[in-house]
Amino acid sequence: MDRRNFMATAGLGAVGSTLAAPALAQSQPEVIWRLQSSYPKSLNTIYGAADSFAKAVTEATDGRFQIQVFAAGEIIPPLSIVDGVQRGTVEMGQTGSYFYIGQDPAFAFGTCIPFGPNARQQNGWFYEGGGNDLFNEFCATYDLVHFPAGNTGTQMGGWFRKEINSAEDLKGLKMRIGGLAGNVLQRLGLVPTQIAAGDIYPSLERGTIDAAEFVGPQDDQNLGLSKIAPFYYFPGFWEGAASLSFFINLEKWKALPASYQSIVRTAAMAAGTEMTAKYDVQNPIALARLLSEGTQLRAFPQDVLQKSYAAAREVYAELGEKSPAFKKLLDHQMEYRDRTYQWWRISDYSYDTLMLRAAQEQW
Amino acid sequence: MDRRNFMATAGLGAVGSTLAAPALAQSQPEVIWRLQSSYPKSLNTIYGAADSFAKAVTEATDGRFQIQVFAAGEIIPPLSIVDGVQRGTVEMGQTGSYFYIGQDPAFAFGTCIPFGPNARQQNGWFYEGGGNDLFNEFCATYDLVHFPAGNTGTQMGGWFRKEINSAEDLKGLKMRIGGLAGNVLQRLGLVPTQIAAGDIYPSLERGTIDAAEFVGPQDDQNLGLSKIAPFYYFPGFWEGAASLSFFINLEKWKALPASYQSIVRTAAMAAGTEMTAKYDVQNPIALARLLSEGTQLRAFPQDVLQKSYAAAREVYAELGEKSPAFKKLLDHQMEYRDRTYQWWRISDYSYDTLMLRAAQEQW
Repeated sequence: MDRRNFMATAGLGAVGSTLAAPALAQSQPEVIWRLQSSYPKSLNTIYGAADSFAKAVTEATDGRFQIQVFAAGEIIPPLSIVDGVQRGTVEMGQTGSYFYIGQDPAFAFGTCIPFGPNARQQNGWFYEGGGNDLFNEFCATYDLVHFPAGNTGTQMGGWFRKEINSAEDLKGLKMRIGGLAGNVLQRLGLVPTQIAAGDIYPSLERGTIDAAEFVGPQDDQNLGLSKIAPFYYFPGFWEGAASLSFFINLEKWKALPASYQSIVRTAAMAAGTEMTAKYDVQNPIALARLLSEGTQLRAFPQDVLQKSYAAAREVYAELGEKSPAFKKLLDHQMEYRDRTYQWWRISDYSYDTLMLRAAQEQW
Repeated sequence: MDRRNFMATAGLGAVGSTLAAPALAQSQPEVIWRLQSSYPKSLNTIYGAADSFAKAVTEATDGRFQIQVFAAGEIIPPLSIVDGVQRGTVEMGQTGSYFYIGQDPAFAFGTCIPFGPNARQQNGWFYEGGGNDLFNEFCATYDLVHFPAGNTGTQMGGWFRKEINSAEDLKGLKMRIGGLAGNVLQRLGLVPTQIAAGDIYPSLERGTIDAAEFVGPQDDQNLGLSKIAPFYYFPGFWEGAASLSFFINLEKWKALPASYQSIVRTAAMAAGTEMTAKYDVQNPIALARLLSEGTQLRAFPQDVLQKSYAAAREVYAELGEKSPAFKKLLDHQMEYRDRTYQWWRISDYSYDTLMLRAAQEQW
């Protein structure tokens, strides 16, 4: 199953203090891993993060630990990363964790839940708020180790052929939408469907779906969505901050020497930071281009926001009864999220308000 | 000058393709660096980032590349990092780049300028917008290499003994304030002074200064500032997003094998991400504690914001005439900053607005 993994069997014990040359060779075995992404190469942001991660690992080990990156579908189907990594078909995958809520809704917390914390708050939760440790307790039951792999920031609410003037207009609409947002908007009458990135354009063109959300201006333009649907809604309240995920097979992870584990942990964090930076640089440029080409921006009507917020609470309560892991993660994240707002209001939000007004000379 | 640097002189050329044991030993020489921080150990956020960085480098190299971290003043004075690293007294330093605007105002861009981009936008500028490359062109003239080392997010505007009800109240006020903010607020009549973190508390207690800003709730409470001045102002518009800096001696940097350079680059990025996460988790808790202990929050009056904004533009124009490097970096960053707002307004800002309202049930 794992022919390309040439991991040396010797020298995988505790290493670190002995600096002599023989110990060196033992502590840095040659390892080759395969990482498959759920995303196509055309997404320089997300797929680019997997590439950057692999490059950092290779460089740090002078090529002794190589991670080969494969695009969506090259080895396993794009939305089968959890299964493929759990089985060990690939050692590692890059995906949206919330694609797997069908297996357990708790998988949503690797990405985000509707009305969750924003990107900075979510990174705080993952890295310093105990969030990723708690999520990994759940992932271990699937023989997986999880690393956050970069946040997209607040996403767009997607592309619609017709304007949405009230929640009524969502009724019967067939829409490609990721994660728990489908469960939430279903309560408003929307018909959600989950489609891998590369298949969104043909589905929308063919009329199989009426609307589609993916990420934001940079990625959406790469998928060509603006060519089919003119109305571009904001904010994507179901992905106020969507994190990408690296999943690693637990057994393969444990077999790595401590130095390689550390390199992977650090490289994943850095690749995520780089991905967010890419989005923050490229999205403004892509948005301006889309607007110049005729895309029309629209804010979701107030009743869509309010009804979705109420529906989300109902969905959370129901899922919490079905999945103890979901309930545990939900309570933990919501308590954290609510604690952040007093500070956020006077710090970054207050500064953003000042700067957005100053930019328009509106004091 | 550099007795503790045992860098092997052999094997520093191109490495990477040969995987045999002898090449291995050559490509991973034993290196020991000293990193001094401008900050005391009591700041678990900032000093903690230097520690995390050093730990990641040590782990990635199985202890072959060790970075010893020293607190403010242990080897060189806390605000002499640029000089100390340039001379090679220490190989590396962690500091606020804007402490060195006396040498050239362009140093401000390693940290931030008043009314600059927010944290996400600034990371975008540094990592993917060409900002750090441009800043490094300037740093090379000081024999330095610069890595962003984590952003604090929007800081607080500091601690005041008396309320500030209009810009008039700033006149004659002696205040500890970092970077170009001093130049800006001087135009409103404030008397700015730059004091290292560890000396702020005694200066404020003694009455040498009337007010002091440092970072935000977590760090400020560690310095004990709330015990002396009751009014805590927001937002710190001169540090809407302050980045910490790692400076490395250029010659020492060039002498590193490519693998170590890559490890340093990646570890700096990850340590920065971790630091921001720490702030985002700890600041809300620290703020709540401060408020429960009697600290009184105040927003800066509108005329302070407007007059400071106008003063900042004047300061930038003047500094741009004095320093070509400042002008080049300013133009580059301002063009970038202004380009981000259209997108920020409909994405994260719009989501934050929604969530802050929802948190208070104010639709």
